[in-house]
Amino acid sequence: MNNGLNALDRLVSLFSKLPGIGKKSAGRLVYHILDADPSYAKTLAAELQGLHEAIRKCSHCGSFTESDPCAICSDPSRDHSVLCVVERAQDVRVIEESKEFRGLFHVLGGLIAPLDGVNPGDLTIVQLLGRVRDENVTEVILALNPTIEGDTTALYILKFLKERLPSYQLEISRLASGLPVGGDLEYTDRLTLSRSLRGRIKM
Amino acid sequence: MNNGLNALDRLVSLFSKLPGIGKKSAGRLVYHILDADPSYAKTLAAELQGLHEAIRKCSHCGSFTESDPCAICSDPSRDHSVLCVVERAQDVRVIEESKEFRGLFHVLGGLIAPLDGVNPGDLTIVQLLGRVRDENVTEVILALNPTIEGDTTALYILKFLKERLPSYQLEISRLASGLPVGGDLEYTDRLTLSRSLRGRIKM
Repeated sequence: MNNGLNALDRLVSLFSKLPGIGKKSAGRLVYHILDADPSYAKTLAAELQGLHEAIRKCSHCGSFTESDPCAICSDPSRDHSVLCVVERAQDVRVIEESKEFRGLFHVLGGLIAPLDGVNPGDLTIVQLLGRVRDENVTEVILALNPTIEGDTTALYILKFLKERLPSYQLEISRLASGLPVGGDLEYTDRLTLSRSLRGRIKM
Repeated sequence: MNNGLNALDRLVSLFSKLPGIGKKSAGRLVYHILDADPSYAKTLAAELQGLHEAIRKCSHCGSFTESDPCAICSDPSRDHSVLCVVERAQDVRVIEESKEFRGLFHVLGGLIAPLDGVNPGDLTIVQLLGRVRDENVTEVILALNPTIEGDTTALYILKFLKERLPSYQLEISRLASGLPVGGDLEYTDRLTLSRSLRGRIKM
């Protein structure tokens, strides 16, 4: 016998696939949506339907954008000689919100983690080398999480760029401490992030 | 100048309207959806689009259902002489999952809370009286949250039914303790709920 809750169960199951949302929280969300005005569900549906068409990755820096190249890469008022290297596209937004950085970005697409099968070749490190060489970049800021993977990746990039561009005058720095060790860039408050950008340490 | 993130911002803003989801969590969800296979967003969109058409309230008991009357009300194997009165439609699912109850439900649609403008007339208490009188109901279990509003509502219903049906042999009970005072029915584990159903106290 049909228990009468199939559409509801399917939606609960879909929501519980999102990070940090268990089965109980998912149920709560779905019931909230059911109790709310139907226009909310319709609007949410329409936005989700069009999301992947509206948002793509910038072919230049790798951040999420509606136009390619993105608004940051194509902004002539920004300092094109400074690159801020981040792990994921969402980190661009966090750093933009600190309003401390006026250069361009470069999204690595991950951090080196051999145990998880992520090797330097899986990241956009060669593309970073190309951008530094071809676009008159004089400074690279490595804005990676202060974790083992973040440290490993930062040291790898430092060594890689120094080896491949031995005669190049390139300043490479990391975000200053201020980020708690083992923490996550995405959950850092704006003030802490501003300070760690200002006090970045030359490597 | 367009910051290139409008579709993204709109979706973050929609998600942050859900209970327990702040702006940062909403951002995390949207980026997770962007990183996931596009089919996930499409499926979620389709389910949300059809949600309010697929799920309605049972005209008999008030719980969420795909067919009217719901599967519980139209199940002849259930005990139609026992009614379990709950605050919200989602509470039906919680009690069904405890597998302790084999009667029918009655959704009140809220709890009496004069300070929030919820009076007895806003709830389905008169409909409850009608069901008790017309459907040979012999027992009413008040499965309301053990809060001030829940206690007030339970006492009101007790008095109301006793006054209107003075010669009627009706047993009225509440869920036994076991639910922590001030807690929420929805977050109670199945075992605690089973025990509180078995040990319900006659009023």
